[in-house]
Amino acid sequence: MARKKIENVRNVTCVGAGPIGGGWTAHFLGRGYDVTCYMHDPAEEDALRRLLDTAWKCLEQIGLADGASLDRLTCTSDLAEAVAHADFVQESVPENIDIKQALYEKLGGLVPDDVIIASSTSGLSMTDIQARCATPERTVVAHPFNPPYLLPLVEMVGGEKSSAGALTWAAEFYTYTGKAPLIMTKEVPGFVATRIQEAVWREALHMVENGEATPEQIDIAMVNGPGPRWAFGGPFMTYHIGGGEGGMAYCLDQFGPALKLPWTRLEAPELTKDLRDNLVNDSENRATGRTFSDLSEERDAGLVAVAQAWNKIGKLP
Amino acid sequence: MARKKIENVRNVTCVGAGPIGGGWTAHFLGRGYDVTCYMHDPAEEDALRRLLDTAWKCLEQIGLADGASLDRLTCTSDLAEAVAHADFVQESVPENIDIKQALYEKLGGLVPDDVIIASSTSGLSMTDIQARCATPERTVVAHPFNPPYLLPLVEMVGGEKSSAGALTWAAEFYTYTGKAPLIMTKEVPGFVATRIQEAVWREALHMVENGEATPEQIDIAMVNGPGPRWAFGGPFMTYHIGGGEGGMAYCLDQFGPALKLPWTRLEAPELTKDLRDNLVNDSENRATGRTFSDLSEERDAGLVAVAQAWNKIGKLP
Repeated sequence: MARKKIENVRNVTCVGAGPIGGGWTAHFLGRGYDVTCYMHDPAEEDALRRLLDTAWKCLEQIGLADGASLDRLTCTSDLAEAVAHADFVQESVPENIDIKQALYEKLGGLVPDDVIIASSTSGLSMTDIQARCATPERTVVAHPFNPPYLLPLVEMVGGEKSSAGALTWAAEFYTYTGKAPLIMTKEVPGFVATRIQEAVWREALHMVENGEATPEQIDIAMVNGPGPRWAFGGPFMTYHIGGGEGGMAYCLDQFGPALKLPWTRLEAPELTKDLRDNLVNDSENRATGRTFSDLSEERDAGLVAVAQAWNKIGKLP
Repeated sequence: MARKKIENVRNVTCVGAGPIGGGWTAHFLGRGYDVTCYMHDPAEEDALRRLLDTAWKCLEQIGLADGASLDRLTCTSDLAEAVAHADFVQESVPENIDIKQALYEKLGGLVPDDVIIASSTSGLSMTDIQARCATPERTVVAHPFNPPYLLPLVEMVGGEKSSAGALTWAAEFYTYTGKAPLIMTKEVPGFVATRIQEAVWREALHMVENGEATPEQIDIAMVNGPGPRWAFGGPFMTYHIGGGEGGMAYCLDQFGPALKLPWTRLEAPELTKDLRDNLVNDSENRATGRTFSDLSEERDAGLVAVAQAWNKIGKLP
């Protein structure tokens, strides 16, 4: 399938104008695209405009693409009109399988089949969503993190009939627009980010339920402890740096036994030699060319940026 | 027990000069104190000076207290001399109960008993540490998060013989120096922050072990998804905002059923009416006077600060 060159994409259509569809609209407008936003009911446009005004103030501070303008938005409640010139379609309609299937059935005929249709769904599978679509190869899941105009993550996976080429094209396009796509090889409930969030959430609920800590204490612990580090490096790279000169290998040898301690209610998997080697190799490959001192300076630079932001804008209550 | 007024504290003694003791030394020097650092072996001073040079560059960017200077550091390997003028003692010697007990036995006689001795221990209980100390009332656990000169969290708890007054004095002192103390009412393994971290870590290990995601993918998901939000607000306030105008109550009614879904391997507690009411009341009390719009603007301001920092210094690999 010959697809448009990524740098030639001009028109993006967002189907759905709620917080997620509106957030995507802000993102693509901010990157300088002509955006058409389809909404079920024209009355939704007021709320969309308010969301865009809020988002725009943020995007102006981070940096807009040349030529980016809120004036490059078109709103319509005519689906055929909405996708008539689309080079890319981002769908964010309600999480209801009947609504999604009916929509993809229509889009399948309306949108030229070399144009990718990406769904923001957080819980439905593309195999189900694309069931009634006549041109399912170019449909993929691309789940953003809220708000989509500020958080770069896009978790991606195909359905049974999606083509690998559609996934890679879409991932390249997202990267080109400043997003951080993550292509998964299988559909895992909660993808990755929601699983991380949910592990924290459930351990936190247990602590509150058992009188070990109040919600406020847990929030204080997160913001002033692990939170700032995770804004710049994930748990694996954080531990690789935490291991000092010895990196991940030292960290695992030192703290491996702690996996048996009751430090959370979630039991750990066995730290087999294979798992250990996998983690050590991954960290060393990614850190290539950077010494411990380089990495810890990078980490500290992130923490300084957060501390400066706290001084300026404070923390949430 | 009459203790020194917090604003009259001038001399802080850090016992132990490794990464944690050295990090505390940097923190107190940065806040303008005279700091005496005790080290077991005078040869440790070189590594301490290197750590302080690195830390100082960070602290200069965040803001030093008036008069703060690296010249206000005294290093010694004479314990009696180290604590002779101490208004506050922060202990960070190796995590070995025999070493700690022997040290607290000595400190008990050397340090006037109106002076607080706080231990950086992450895993030992103060009840055990203070066992051979003749003046245990003023000894408390005060566990920092690494690096202590950048991350504000101090998790605090007493041992059986610790006085409540010692805990509250120390917490006020930490707050006065810019830290975020969290007093726990019981000794919970891993306190709060390590439990949060460990829940993430173990879910992440399971995902790698089961081929659901690579370490790199998990790091990408964290940094570009939940991480930046947690640098400014903990999981509870994040969900309170995520609930929109309806706040935590809406969020729990909407996503409560998801607690039964396999979104992590950790099973959730039952979301009873008591637990739900506790969470809703906590969020509403803390958000007092702030509308949803205020809170979401505060959250977005934090995310903008992180995005600006990414543009300037990048993310970890």
